[in-house]
Amino acid sequence: MPQLRKDPIIGRWVIISLERAKRPHDFASEKTEKDEDHSAEDCIFCEGRERRTPDELLAVRPANSAPNTKGWQVRVITNVPPLLQIEGDMGRRARGIFDVMNGIGAHELIIESPRHLTDFAELDVDAMSEVFKVYAERIKDLEKDKRIKYVLICKNHGFVAGEMENKHLRTQLIAMPVNPKRVKEELVSSRHYYEYRERCIFCDMIRQEIENKERVIVREEGFIAFCPFASRFPFEICVLPEEHSCDFYKINNPRGLARVMKSVMKRLHVALSDPPYNFIIHTAPFRRMASAGFWKTLEYDYHWHIEIMPRLTKVAGFEWGSGFYINPTPPEDAAKFLREVQI
Amino acid sequence: MPQLRKDPIIGRWVIISLERAKRPHDFASEKTEKDEDHSAEDCIFCEGRERRTPDELLAVRPANSAPNTKGWQVRVITNVPPLLQIEGDMGRRARGIFDVMNGIGAHELIIESPRHLTDFAELDVDAMSEVFKVYAERIKDLEKDKRIKYVLICKNHGFVAGEMENKHLRTQLIAMPVNPKRVKEELVSSRHYYEYRERCIFCDMIRQEIENKERVIVREEGFIAFCPFASRFPFEICVLPEEHSCDFYKINNPRGLARVMKSVMKRLHVALSDPPYNFIIHTAPFRRMASAGFWKTLEYDYHWHIEIMPRLTKVAGFEWGSGFYINPTPPEDAAKFLREVQI
Repeated sequence: MPQLRKDPIIGRWVIISLERAKRPHDFASEKTEKDEDHSAEDCIFCEGRERRTPDELLAVRPANSAPNTKGWQVRVITNVPPLLQIEGDMGRRARGIFDVMNGIGAHELIIESPRHLTDFAELDVDAMSEVFKVYAERIKDLEKDKRIKYVLICKNHGFVAGEMENKHLRTQLIAMPVNPKRVKEELVSSRHYYEYRERCIFCDMIRQEIENKERVIVREEGFIAFCPFASRFPFEICVLPEEHSCDFYKINNPRGLARVMKSVMKRLHVALSDPPYNFIIHTAPFRRMASAGFWKTLEYDYHWHIEIMPRLTKVAGFEWGSGFYINPTPPEDAAKFLREVQI
Repeated sequence: MPQLRKDPIIGRWVIISLERAKRPHDFASEKTEKDEDHSAEDCIFCEGRERRTPDELLAVRPANSAPNTKGWQVRVITNVPPLLQIEGDMGRRARGIFDVMNGIGAHELIIESPRHLTDFAELDVDAMSEVFKVYAERIKDLEKDKRIKYVLICKNHGFVAGEMENKHLRTQLIAMPVNPKRVKEELVSSRHYYEYRERCIFCDMIRQEIENKERVIVREEGFIAFCPFASRFPFEICVLPEEHSCDFYKINNPRGLARVMKSVMKRLHVALSDPPYNFIIHTAPFRRMASAGFWKTLEYDYHWHIEIMPRLTKVAGFEWGSGFYINPTPPEDAAKFLREVQI
């Protein structure tokens, strides 16, 4: 079973794979990989090959069709092998000054098209809207498992962004028994802000971006996309609902989000000739005691959003080691390019 | 002038270059770069070409030799163009809910060999020892500038680690008017630990690693190198003095550090066939009031160390967005390989 280990100084959790451990020569062979799609003809994720993957956990398909057969639009399966597994107990324990626990959780793939598409921007608004609904449904379902504290949804596009050889359009979902450090930091900080001002810091930021205009890329149907004031990366983008909402899975207008995301992803694709990127959804951790009065106020301390990070620069080691970023493209310039590009 | 901007939610500072801003087509051309050294024949950092670089700020050279002439062993110059510049005032100000300040600081290059070496592991122990002394001297000198809060020293080796086309052996130094987030986090956390236990958390970790043995790579002359228990990356390495010391620039046995670093870098080179990597020195921020009683106790709340991060895996977008790392190589295995490799 994989192991979760906590850094005692920084408080960061790391998944350490114990079974399929990589040895030095595994990395040497990786150096020669290219950014090519090798699997179009024999892709196990394409429609008609459902029997070659694990059974579906959820699918958008006609009511009269059987699971694991043709006819679906979006399909969710367990990743093989999973980074975290659903069976077993947490076994949280100390090892000297260190913290360790079993790699309990879930690791799923959301296959976003029955055809062999490889670019999220190619999906039409309806299809993208279905994809967002599936994200929300999976999170809602995983909330029932009391061991799970957080569900991360993350897309890797392009070789340098960690995409595999088979580029069939899909997104990863990782359900975990701990909160990821970055989300926790955002939560702590926005809670302080809320306690001090009784306003959501994200809502304040959205208001300022709307007033200021220069970093906004698109606003539509209650959603806004802008390049953050302190962008870490060139062409970094943040997408949020303008109306306050802390939980992504409570989204009530997935079509609005799809319209904004379609526009943004298309703009990125054209402006930067299909750049590698990651996007990740930041939503509030599960708060299962939310019915209590105290927790109710806490709905105002977080605001879900999507972070889109194009992978254009290579200087990450320095950034990893310091948490100090160098961005050669002012977000005002990036937003202007993305606003003005012809799509 | 470059601008420092603070993320209001995460508290992270970012340098935004305003003058040499990169536009979309600049990134498109970067995609085709290769990991080759194009400048061996016409390298401006090689001995004999001192006039083609900015004047030296410091050099290890015979007492009777003139600055910016041949005969040096290590040479420090200002980077062109600097990411942060020494002239001007801080101008820290608010812009709505955001924080902004001028890009004041310093950005230097430490040229580590007069010959066109490209690999730190090639330096002999004496030369490496001189290099560490120069790091320490530059930090000591920059401490005099009251605007500077922190000096980061970082090496990029290999294309994916952010190294430039000219691979002449050198290290970057960035002096900044704010503390980098990662170091601040370590400091806050180890201070809490100290307040609670009256012991340094790093010292406790070293003791546990020595007792446990399985993650230790090498111990020599009062220094230890091990793969951290919660390593984020395969073959991540931490190097520390075994005796407590919070400030790198107070190092009194640079030759001991050089012996351990030489051994570690050589092992990495052989085990992983010259992998790309970054290393970064984490030292305590400047504490200029250290003479006061209160601050004296604080010397026990931090322990300088070097983080070495080989760049073997590509999944960083997810990690950037979540602060949650996936490491396919247990540090126990990595340490065993590095211990046993023939150098």
